[in-house]
Amino acid sequence: MKSTTRYLKLNVPERMDFVNITPDVEETVRESGVQEGLCLVNAMHITASVFINDDEPGLHEDYKRWLEKLAPFDASPEVYHHNRTGEDNGDAHHKRQVMGREVVVAVTNGEIDFGPWEQIFYGEFDGRREKRILIKVIGE
Amino acid sequence: MKSTTRYLKLNVPERMDFVNITPDVEETVRESGVQEGLCLVNAMHITASVFINDDEPGLHEDYKRWLEKLAPFDASPEVYHHNRTGEDNGDAHHKRQVMGREVVVAVTNGEIDFGPWEQIFYGEFDGRREKRILIKVIGE
Amino acid sequence: MKSTTRYLKLNVPERMDFVNITPDVEETVRESGVQEGLCLVNAMHITASVFINDDEPGLHEDYKRWLEKLAPFDASPEVYHHNRTGEDNGDAHHKRQVMGREVVVAVTNGEIDFGPWEQIFYGEFDGRREKRILIKVIGE
Repeated sequence: MKSTTRYLKLNVPERMDFVNITPDVEETVRESGVQEGLCLVNAMHITASVFINDDEPGLHEDYKRWLEKLAPFDASPEVYHHNRTGEDNGDAHHKRQVMGREVVVAVTNGEIDFGPWEQIFYGEFDGRREKRILIKVIGE
Repeated sequence: MKSTTRYLKLNVPERMDFVNITPDVEETVRESGVQEGLCLVNAMHITASVFINDDEPGLHEDYKRWLEKLAPFDASPEVYHHNRTGEDNGDAHHKRQVMGREVVVAVTNGEIDFGPWEQIFYGEFDGRREKRILIKVIGE
Repeated sequence: MKSTTRYLKLNVPERMDFVNITPDVEETVRESGVQEGLCLVNAMHITASVFINDDEPGLHEDYKRWLEKLAPFDASPEVYHHNRTGEDNGDAHHKRQVMGREVVVAVTNGEIDFGPWEQIFYGEFDGRREKRILIKVIGE
């Protein structure tokens, strides 16, 4: 069994934004030499997501408005008790649960086995500082 | 390490519906010959989900009403900016995020290691055309 | 390829609550002897979740209030058709979808490859009876 581990570092300048990390994951899969296997991609921070969807700016705007409605930003400790710790990112911990922590993709014939429009995104909900993403490929 | 890859094709006649694909996944696991390993099942389209829950029609009705409330269908480009592309499926991209893209199940003693009521479903949110599901089994 | 399977049993005294199961997963990974691989942790019941987030009581309170708003408990068969079966846990099947069924974590150098604050939780939404969690480690 082969395995490769890679850590991506990102510093997203906005509080909430989505970054297409597909090229980094594809590169890691190729470097691993794995022909048949699985590839895990996960946010290493709990106010961020990794998810698969469309690389379409209108959809990303829609996601931001929708997540803001489902879990609005509010720095006060009354709305999110988590903010009693001195943090202001209670909302980000909720947005991340909606969008998910990780994706697992199949590796087939040495490539990510994508459907027609699948792209891998990092979803940041408490940005403006360095965060890490883990990519792990296992297989043969 | 052994691996098996299978693609299911489905054409769901409704816009939104759930299809129990457990028998297909079980068959693929048996054909793989894997005794101990992992099985990934994912929607290959970004307006669809694969998830695990109960095969109970009342619950499926509940999910449909709930998802319609969380992310209502609206073809207009004002509500979902995604629909400015000419699509009308902005809602489907949101519903899919709530229900998830994929499941990973354990394979133990050559069978899917299910809890008492676990069944694997394909969740369609923009149907009436052919879609694909990927099943990947790895292990030994 | 090595593999280890372990089943945790839990009986959560509240209807809804979160239990930190990180030590059990870490122990299973160490016992597996796997140095590089993947570890799946999933709820075996469909009214429960396994998810990764912060071990902070204020956040857990926030999650409970938020989930209750997104999918309120209601035993009547009018609100959740699922409850026409005689169950009263329709809400729990919805809460579980928001929080997710499973996590997959990387194993690197014989340890779970966690980010700075990642902790693994069992999320119970219909407690007061015994439930099971599956931990499966594969790798080399």
